Amino acid sequence: MGLEAHLQHASLLKKVAESMKDLCKDVNFDCSEKGIEVQCMDSSHVALVSVLLRESAFAEFKCDRPVSLGMNIDSLTKILKMTSANDSLKIRHQTDADTVNFQCEGSDDRIADFDLKLMQIESEHMEIPEQHYKVVAKLPSSEFQKVCRDLKEFGETIQISGSKEGLKFMVQGDLGSGNVMLKPREGEKPEEKVSLTVHEPVTATFALRYLVNFAKAEKLCGSVELGLSPDAPLLVKYDLETADKGHMQFYLAPKIDE
Amino acid sequence: MGLEAHLQHASLLKKVAESMKDLCKDVNFDCSEKGIEVQCMDSSHVALVSVLLRESAFAEFKCDRPVSLGMNIDSLTKILKMTSANDSLKIRHQTDADTVNFQCEGSDDRIADFDLKLMQIESEHMEIPEQHYKVVAKLPSSEFQKVCRDLKEFGETIQISGSKEGLKFMVQGDLGSGNVMLKPREGEKPEEKVSLTVHEPVTATFALRYLVNFAKAEKLCGSVELGLSPDAPLLVKYDLETADKGHMQFYLAPKIDE
Amino acid sequence: MGLEAHLQHASLLKKVAESMKDLCKDVNFDCSEKGIEVQCMDSSHVALVSVLLRESAFAEFKCDRPVSLGMNIDSLTKILKMTSANDSLKIRHQTDADTVNFQCEGSDDRIADFDLKLMQIESEHMEIPEQHYKVVAKLPSSEFQKVCRDLKEFGETIQISGSKEGLKFMVQGDLGSGNVMLKPREGEKPEEKVSLTVHEPVTATFALRYLVNFAKAEKLCGSVELGLSPDAPLLVKYDLETADKGHMQFYLAPKIDE
Repeated sequence: MGLEAHLQHASLLKKVAESMKDLCKDVNFDCSEKGIEVQCMDSSHVALVSVLLRESAFAEFKCDRPVSLGMNIDSLTKILKMTSANDSLKIRHQTDADTVNFQCEGSDDRIADFDLKLMQIESEHMEIPEQHYKVVAKLPSSEFQKVCRDLKEFGETIQISGSKEGLKFMVQGDLGSGNVMLKPREGEKPEEKVSLTVHEPVTATFALRYLVNFAKAEKLCGSVELGLSPDAPLLVKYDLETADKGHMQFYLAPKIDE
Repeated sequence: MGLEAHLQHASLLKKVAESMKDLCKDVNFDCSEKGIEVQCMDSSHVALVSVLLRESAFAEFKCDRPVSLGMNIDSLTKILKMTSANDSLKIRHQTDADTVNFQCEGSDDRIADFDLKLMQIESEHMEIPEQHYKVVAKLPSSEFQKVCRDLKEFGETIQISGSKEGLKFMVQGDLGSGNVMLKPREGEKPEEKVSLTVHEPVTATFALRYLVNFAKAEKLCGSVELGLSPDAPLLVKYDLETADKGHMQFYLAPKIDE
Repeated sequence: MGLEAHLQHASLLKKVAESMKDLCKDVNFDCSEKGIEVQCMDSSHVALVSVLLRESAFAEFKCDRPVSLGMNIDSLTKILKMTSANDSLKIRHQTDADTVNFQCEGSDDRIADFDLKLMQIESEHMEIPEQHYKVVAKLPSSEFQKVCRDLKEFGETIQISGSKEGLKFMVQGDLGSGNVMLKPREGEKPEEKVSLTVHEPVTATFALRYLVNFAKAEKLCGSVELGLSPDAPLLVKYDLETADKGHMQFYLAPKIDE
């Protein structure tokens, strides 16, 4: 036996796969005793997606030796669509087998089983150096999604500005110019909070359509973390429900003004 | 007067018409003192749809002499879309008239009335011999629909296998192979039950897209009955809410392995 | 300062803009101390839209001197999509400025701000003479929408007939002929009522697709008023929530039978 991983809720992997779908096509799921990791650049090499599903996210997790399982994200999404909200999921891979098995089971004696053919995918794992961002902002993930969707109607480029006053998103286009300002605030629930840690105010410019794609991951977690530094990639980070289960991180290179 | 039939809830005929829409185009509604019957082959002559709306399904039912009313299902669907959930429906046809009248009435003094032009449709009524199926399975109609929709993502052909262990649906395709197993189970409500009567285990193969179409009839009834015999057409049967009102039956010829 | 207008709920203007969208493209918002008025013909010059947002609809309203602000309705709709259900809205225009500013603010310290470029639009304001209609009918706006949508499936021309018996909508087409009759009725809520004032029975004929467009304004108000006179345009009138805030009126020229 190579890999045997049981998720209590198939929905966790389902949400991860759906959040990757618009940016990644064929990716390696790198399995090791630490858990499952995915890294992939989008086709234009402007954005990087990095997922870590920690071993502790699983009800049971065994991985004899590291293995990379190459899958097409659309195919994986189709398989996970078979699962219902409370189904559990078992992922199994026999060492050297050319398929990976997904078995989901509901409380209703319904067992869905799928053997997915594996793919050989060229990829190299990048080490992403830990970055000390000048501005770290936490905001509700639904609000981040709304800002990105609203502003994409008006232009292709977004300027994000973080300061003690708050987080400001700005767009200019043919119709005029608009901005949304989120001021720091408390919330009844932690995910309703807007908070900023500002070592130094930062303003940077990005291609808005990537942010629209990242923001679809809002179902992963109630809040999202943005990390901004001058001339550095933007970090958009979602915990997988809770931080101890892992995270999904998006990196986006800034647009440099000519 | 030829035909006068009152349905307490127009929604019953609405659901029947919507369930026929994808398979039938122009059909005869054969009216007699027994009620209203429809039989129609799909255009590829692989599937047969058979509906019986018993006289007892109607609050009032008079039919002086047998008459075949030829209608286009899309037109009928458009008319029935005018009805709201609790509207009652009167269907009236004067002997030899070239229109049939639909009148629906809500509790709100709203009366919608439509005279639909009748069509001349060639058709012959087949006698479908009562079949003694080797496997008869009952399952929730929503679950049957989910299985068909899920598996159609992976292949065009489905293998259905009925045995004492349960009912198994299998698909093979480019991505790999999958199956869903439903084991017999009790349920709080009768329509949540999965039950099998197995005289002899049967495995047979069918074109999946027809099953996807049949399964849309799930709104007719909470449970669906499947009948399987070797080399015989599959039966997919829905009661019209309750068995005494009638039923909608689909027959599908098996695919013979070369 | 030229114009400064505060709406307690941005949703009021949002609904007005969405109700104009299918009929109007570029329109002048004529601002004066009375409030804001819009008048616009549809491109085929068969229908006229007339909106009055009274000064009293605003929490605050200042307009130093009359000004016409030319805007594209699609752009305005995009801006107002940024607002959430309970956001307040400030509209500001400095005398002679070439932009108008929209600022919406939620209870959650989220401020969205947009400067929309103004357009120069040729238009002349028509005086619409007060008409004394032979039939004035009030009905639920959702029911008016349902009738228009249902009947448009069967034909392009609708005949509306108002008499003491009620309001009748008739369509003839290839499939046959249909009609919906609404009889006068009381309702638990005022907007559930159907009432008719009939000085003289009227029957008139209209292009149905315009009515389908008008009827989308149903979100403005629970009830709609129709005004009918022989050979005169049909009036379809919605209050903006309540009559004292203003109204949205549609006029449609009748089809003359050859």
